[in-house]
Parts: sequence; structure tokens; C-alpha cells
Amino acid sequence: MTNPMTFRHPGFKFLLTLALSLPLLVQAAEPLPSWNDGPSKKQIIEFVQTVTDQNSKDFVKPEDRIAVFDNDGTLWSEQPMYFELLFALEEVKRTAPQHPEWKTTQPFQAVLENDHKALAATGMEGLLKIFGATHTGMTTEAFDDYAKTWLSQARHPKTGKPYTEMIFQPMLEMLDYLRGKDFKTYIVSGGDTGFMRAFAEKVYGVPPEQVIGTTFVTSFEYKDGKASILRTPKLAHNDDGPGKPESIDAVIGRRPILAFGNSDGDLQMLQWTADGPGKRFMGLVHHTDAKREWAYDRQSQIGRLDKALDEANKRGWTVVDMASEWRRIYPFDAATSEQVQ
Amino acid sequence: MTNPMTFRHPGFKFLLTLALSLPLLVQAAEPLPSWNDGPSKKQIIEFVQTVTDQNSKDFVKPEDRIAVFDNDGTLWSEQPMYFELLFALEEVKRTAPQHPEWKTTQPFQAVLENDHKALAATGMEGLLKIFGATHTGMTTEAFDDYAKTWLSQARHPKTGKPYTEMIFQPMLEMLDYLRGKDFKTYIVSGGDTGFMRAFAEKVYGVPPEQVIGTTFVTSFEYKDGKASILRTPKLAHNDDGPGKPESIDAVIGRRPILAFGNSDGDLQMLQWTADGPGKRFMGLVHHTDAKREWAYDRQSQIGRLDKALDEANKRGWTVVDMASEWRRIYPFDAATSEQVQ
Repeated sequence: MTNPMTFRHPGFKFLLTLALSLPLLVQAAEPLPSWNDGPSKKQIIEFVQTVTDQNSKDFVKPEDRIAVFDNDGTLWSEQPMYFELLFALEEVKRTAPQHPEWKTTQPFQAVLENDHKALAATGMEGLLKIFGATHTGMTTEAFDDYAKTWLSQARHPKTGKPYTEMIFQPMLEMLDYLRGKDFKTYIVSGGDTGFMRAFAEKVYGVPPEQVIGTTFVTSFEYKDGKASILRTPKLAHNDDGPGKPESIDAVIGRRPILAFGNSDGDLQMLQWTADGPGKRFMGLVHHTDAKREWAYDRQSQIGRLDKALDEANKRGWTVVDMASEWRRIYPFDAATSEQVQ
Repeated sequence: MTNPMTFRHPGFKFLLTLALSLPLLVQAAEPLPSWNDGPSKKQIIEFVQTVTDQNSKDFVKPEDRIAVFDNDGTLWSEQPMYFELLFALEEVKRTAPQHPEWKTTQPFQAVLENDHKALAATGMEGLLKIFGATHTGMTTEAFDDYAKTWLSQARHPKTGKPYTEMIFQPMLEMLDYLRGKDFKTYIVSGGDTGFMRAFAEKVYGVPPEQVIGTTFVTSFEYKDGKASILRTPKLAHNDDGPGKPESIDAVIGRRPILAFGNSDGDLQMLQWTADGPGKRFMGLVHHTDAKREWAYDRQSQIGRLDKALDEANKRGWTVVDMASEWRRIYPFDAATSEQVQ
């Protein structure tokens, strides 16, 4: 029965191919490797398996698999303050030589003198002036250049890493896992759309048309046969709180079946997602890891998580305990051992 | 040599399969069947072949193959007036019993009395009141229902056909052809985004997230655990003229490589597309067929084509002569014989 020719038989080649592809199959069967086997990982996988199972009553067609993610504090860190705000403050300093009047004008004087108290005293009005001065008055292409240049050069004050490396490895894996199951992954964030587009495709694999954020009114300009789009200081849409479901409806026109945030600014997006028909997934990243990242929630000025945490607990939404559920925070971290509580 | 067994040989089966699939192959090799072999068809195919040819210096990666199409007059007809305006006028009549004051208030009185002269006299202000009364003050889901109900019942005054059948067969074929070549096809139109989304996916194969239009400010509402999004009468974005490249940049964040319109309201979208690097395609539908559709351009109140026609001629953009280049206008039409001029 044993014939050496068997080893040249096409069947052998098939077996060999199968054996060689086994490690890949194993990897495909084990998504979210940076998540400990805690409740959140289980809930994510159960949800995805259910809505992609054609035999489930909760099956969702691929085109309706819309997943929305906040950015600051959900896909990357946001301490000691929003990274885009750090960009704005540094842009004020970089461009100050062209604005000698800033030396004696608030809020710019406070920025130039690193006077955090005076800066805080200028409040939201001051902040809008800083964003106006650094985010507008230029073409969309020029702004993209400024943002990309800063992101390539700037380093985080605590980790010394580029900001685009302070992204959450577990969330990258979740984005990949969802896309592998035909979900369309969107960012819906209070950050400026143009600022996020400067890195979202490269860093998260989210293309520009799936980045939704705060926008300024733009103005199409056509001079000497050259077309450009100018960013003006007038706010068009504040993509925070209720602004999130509003922009989701305006831009996507479908209700998401999965939403992930980390702060009260994400509450309305989660409510909008939760109130659709069929099975839904609502998740919150809870920053509980003072050692590897930061620990903050109800009292934080940045990324306050208070009302949304109450509602999540009340309604049984997924709350990710970063300290116990994430084996690794950043891609550059070594993975910790399993430590499910 | 001739062995009757040959006909049972697997090779024969292969030849048979090949023979049976030949008509399909011919069809695949012959895109745009409702276009005569005129200059426009040639320019479209040459453009698509060039930008999808990996050996061409003008090769464009699939993710950058963004194509934008105006809707009214480009993908469907727009005479005797924009179909959405006909919807608005009929909605005024339908809902009039709930608004007894309209009997004596302009512009509503003019609509109810079919007094076109008095209606025209109320101008843009009147028009905005009509759109406010029929397009806002309801949730986005309720508006979607109204639009779908109207579209399923209303008939065009001249053809007696549903409006959603008065779509241009040659343009449907072009959308399909582009998508088959990994283009992402968007609608960018002065029409209300919600109104177009009510039929764009079913009729054009364009999903809601690829429909960009005029928008009203919306308001997220959360009452008794129910989330909804209310359309308010405040205009958020007028997606006409310069508003088109502005919304393309805001929503898509990439510059299209192909743009198609039919009126001066599309000029800035065409300019924005034209001024990008590499090979570009700019097209205009020229309504020259008074017999099968309508003939109008420089003098028309609806869909005026004047400045854009001059610029197209000057810069060598594609101008489709509907009468001579389209073998068939609507899907329900019989195809005419070849009649290239």
C-alpha cells in the first residue's frame, strides 16, 4: 500500500500547503491578542460573531456594519492635554515672529510666556483664538503640511515618543478585526477633521473620507487658473457631544451598530447607536492605568468620564478597564503577562 | 487522428465553457453600450484605461479613484423643474390641511392656487420658506419616509413615469463601469442630502455615505430614552457652485480625479478637479435632445449651462452631446440606432 509515488501525488502538495498555513489559521482564530481574556474582549468577539453570522436573527448586512470611534482617549492618549492643543500651542510659538503683536496680546502672550494660569483665564474664547490663529487662514493643503510636519517632529513630554506612536495597540487590533469582518471603521471626534486626516490613514488605517471631526467653514478660491480651498476662522461644526450623532447622520447617513468612546463627549453618540434596532455594541475606554498610561475619570478636565460612566453601568455597556484588560497599551510597549482580575 | 472520444475529453468541456462565456466576455470588453462611438465614450474609456494601468505614468491607486457626479440634469432629468422642488410643492399641498393659515400666506397661497407667477414673485425667500416647511421640523427618519413615499407614488407630468425611472441609462453604465475599475462614485449635488439618499442607493447604487448635498442644521434629541435627530430650518451648507468643492474637501478629504456635471453650478467642482496633479477627467452633459429629453443651455432658468460650457470648450473638457452620443436616454427607452454626427 505504501507507494513512494504518493509523495508526488497532488494530494500531498495539498496537505503540505495546509500544514504551512496552519499558523495563519491559528492567528486568524485568535483576534485581539493584546486584550486579556476579560469581559470586554469576550463581549466584542461575541458581538462581532453574532452580527456577521448569516444564521443569526441579529445578522447585519456588510454595508450596514458601521463602527464609530472617538479619537482622543479612545484611539490614542490625551494627557497631559489633547495632542492637537499641544500642536496649536507650539504653532503659536513657531509662527510668533510673524506676529509681533502677540507679545502683548492674550491669549498669545500667555502661550509665549508659558503662563498656564493666564492662558486658562482666557477660557473658551482664548482657545478659539488660538485655534483660529493656527488652524485657519491657510489652504487645506497647507494645513495638512503643517500638521504632518509637526507630527513627524514633536515628542510627547512624558514618553519622549512621537504622538503618532502613543496609539492604543488593543484598539488598533480591534479596528483590524472589525475591518476583517467587513465593518467600515470611522473616526468621530472633537478633533479638527484636517488634523486627524494628517495621520489617521497611516496610523489607524482609516482613510480621509472616514474621518469626521470638528470643521471650520471653508471658502473655494479660484485665482489665475489655480483652485484652492481656504480654511476660515468661522466654526462650521463642533463635533462633540450631540454634535457627534449629528455629524454621523449628516456624513454617513446610517446609524452605527458599534460605537466606542471614553468620555462624556461620547455619550450622545453611544445613545444614538444604542437606540437603533437589533444588536448593538457600546464601549467605553476607562483610563485606570496610572502606571502605563494615566488614571482619570469623573474629575478630569481632559476627557471627563462621569455621566457616560453612569449610563454605561446602568445599561450594561462595555467598560474597558485599561489596567486589567489591556496586556499592552502602546505598540512600543512590551506585553504584560495575563492579569485578568 | 479524429477520435470520437475527443468530445468527452475535459478539453472539450473547457472549449464549450469558453464558447458559452464568450458573450459575457464581449460584454465586459464593451463598456458603455448605450453610448454611441462618439468622442465622449472614447475619452471616458481612454481616461479610465490610463489611470488604472499600472504601467502608466498616470496610474492612480484605487483609494484615490474618486469620481463625483452632480445629480439634477447629470444623473436624472431636471425639467420642467428640479424634481425635488416638485416634491416640495406637492408636500405643501399634502400637508396644507394642518396649516389653514397657508391659504392666505405667501408663498404657500401661490402653491395651493397653482399661481406660478405669484410663486415666482416670492423669489429665493419664498423658496426657502417652502423648503423649510417641507424639509424640516421632523426627524431625519420621518423625512426619509416622506421622500420615499412621494417617490413611489408621484409621476412626471410629461412622461407619466416615476421620477426614479427618469435616470440616464448611459450615466448608470458609466457609474457601473467606474465601480468595476475600483472607483468610488459620489453624488455631489445641490439637492438635499436626505432627499437624494432616499433613492440613490437603490437607483444609482450609490450608498448614503457617498451622497453629498445641501444640508440643514440638525439637532440631536434625547427624550424618555429615545434618540432622534431633528431637521431644523437653518441652512447648514448650500451645496451649489463653490459649495461643491468645499463639501468634497470636508466630507471626502481627497481631490476627485473625475467630475461630471451639466450646469454652471458644477463649474467650481470641475475647476477643483481639473487643478489637481496627474491625469483628470472633466465632463458635462449637454442637453441637446428636445425630442427624447429636453434641449436647453445658456438661457435656461433650470440647469443653466453658460460659463461652464465656455470653460469646457476652452480647456478641452468632455461635453456630451446628448442627442448624438446617447443611444438611449432612460432605461425604459428603446435604444436608437447608431447616429454619431
